[in-house]
Amino acid sequence: MRIAIYGYGNLGKGVECAARQNSDVELVGVFTRRSPEDVKTIFDVPVYSADEIMNYKNEIDVLIICGGSASDLPKMTPMLAEHFNVVDSFDTHAKIPEHFANVDASANEARSVAIISCGWDPGLFSLNRLYGEAILPSGKDYTFWGRGVSQGHSDAIRRIDGVLDARQYTVPVEKALESVRNGEMPVLTTREKHTRECYVVAKEGADLERIEREIKTMPNYFADYDTEVNFISLDELKANHSGIPHGGVVIRTGKTGRELENTCTIEYTLKLDSNPEFTASALVAYARAVYKKSQRGEVGCVTVFDVSPAELSPLSGDEIRATML
Amino acid sequence: MRIAIYGYGNLGKGVECAARQNSDVELVGVFTRRSPEDVKTIFDVPVYSADEIMNYKNEIDVLIICGGSASDLPKMTPMLAEHFNVVDSFDTHAKIPEHFANVDASANEARSVAIISCGWDPGLFSLNRLYGEAILPSGKDYTFWGRGVSQGHSDAIRRIDGVLDARQYTVPVEKALESVRNGEMPVLTTREKHTRECYVVAKEGADLERIEREIKTMPNYFADYDTEVNFISLDELKANHSGIPHGGVVIRTGKTGRELENTCTIEYTLKLDSNPEFTASALVAYARAVYKKSQRGEVGCVTVFDVSPAELSPLSGDEIRATML
Repeated sequence: MRIAIYGYGNLGKGVECAARQNSDVELVGVFTRRSPEDVKTIFDVPVYSADEIMNYKNEIDVLIICGGSASDLPKMTPMLAEHFNVVDSFDTHAKIPEHFANVDASANEARSVAIISCGWDPGLFSLNRLYGEAILPSGKDYTFWGRGVSQGHSDAIRRIDGVLDARQYTVPVEKALESVRNGEMPVLTTREKHTRECYVVAKEGADLERIEREIKTMPNYFADYDTEVNFISLDELKANHSGIPHGGVVIRTGKTGRELENTCTIEYTLKLDSNPEFTASALVAYARAVYKKSQRGEVGCVTVFDVSPAELSPLSGDEIRATML
Repeated sequence: MRIAIYGYGNLGKGVECAARQNSDVELVGVFTRRSPEDVKTIFDVPVYSADEIMNYKNEIDVLIICGGSASDLPKMTPMLAEHFNVVDSFDTHAKIPEHFANVDASANEARSVAIISCGWDPGLFSLNRLYGEAILPSGKDYTFWGRGVSQGHSDAIRRIDGVLDARQYTVPVEKALESVRNGEMPVLTTREKHTRECYVVAKEGADLERIEREIKTMPNYFADYDTEVNFISLDELKANHSGIPHGGVVIRTGKTGRELENTCTIEYTLKLDSNPEFTASALVAYARAVYKKSQRGEVGCVTVFDVSPAELSPLSGDEIRATML
């Protein structure tokens, strides 16, 4: 399977690393909107201008699009699906139906296969919400995120006047987690589920009280949460907060039995040293599924819900039944 | 979807309960090898003799076979797949390839759809082994079972001379679990992974020392484990050990990054008050997938690896994308 990367940020770098771990994957190159000569890949993978991509149409089986969900993917994925089998990690949950419809139209027209919203949420967490609800219909599910870095919230702090740099951690509330794990099926407000931990480097002479107030009262991002603000030095930020860890848990609590007297709990936990590298690893596995679907003549847009687990594996049906079932 | 239950033990009763939780499922009846008049169902579902099942061929969309893996299912599932779409929970891991081949031959001949080895292990745990290996190829996975009742080990103790009744719990070793969770990727022997906890009711005057020795030295079942034997009264067994709880965890630890310097951990945990009721809940969800495949004209034997998550859900593609992705 010959893949290419379209967009070379943290996620694209992650795909470059993940591709090397899969012996059935050949990485053709990286396509960038920057000047190719300005982009240095980790393993000397060739870099091409995004404008040239049509010249490589016959050399790429699946294109992994590593753009942002806010402005890149809504345009890029439908456009590229007109010429390639594609994978993206579109993660604006509320806009997934619209994005799906656009990509599906392109892919059907071009007779290509596209998968959108791969990764872990949306992605593996979504799968666990679905498996949980299908198997335990009389139940309730909970998703907690963290402890991990939220890029969006870190960016929001950086935009405040007087802030040099910042890192924001989303942290699940231990008490809420315990209650869910005990099968109590609590009703939880936003504030009861997560807290927000901020590490902020202020510019010299900046008004720290004002910065803290602006963070804590910021609508959507922080106002509905208990937020902790810590001012630290740039050196400290670099030393202790340079990673991009994340993770979380999906818990389904359901009832079984004659009078629903028994409780069953399904818990799916991710602990990721590197959020983009793990997401990239999922994208490569789903690229394999896209390739298999394409080889079988399927067309159109799908999501993780439409991919059978076997399609993710490089092994044959006989092999997976003998070794993993 | 009209389903029927073939075999009415704990698993069959679990399917009877689970069917009621799914509004798209109609339970046609229970088929038993006993005299139907001797079998009383929980919710007054009709009971028929297994010999009569061919008379109901046109009234059953999917037949859920609730027999034992040792002697029932190897014969029953291939035989019934000649006439029905079927689901079973065959769980003798080493014999799955042979069972698959037999059922696949029958189902292809009859143009029916069969799924074998549904439940949680094999089943949901198998899925998590596959997802883990596909997404994190540079890694290692671990399966721990328990704390829960092993029916096979309890039966083995009951066969010892002087034993009236017994219950055996399989218990994961906390230290081993910790090491795996910490990403240490330990190599673990059988003894290091699980201990076995036995609650035994001895007949009056039986030689307790001999019974304990016979348990602890029993090949395959106990000899390779640290085993604890507790003699208790029949009343105590009934009061404290009458449930059939089980559960366990599949953990995948994998490496990502330029030099595989980052660790990612995927952990899937089940805590089940009732093992047979949860397994039955999974069987009903997979019966829905079998029905959908049959409606689409697919034929042959499949496993959980071949079922896309969407096939398990009663909701439409639009609905699951909008609410669960």
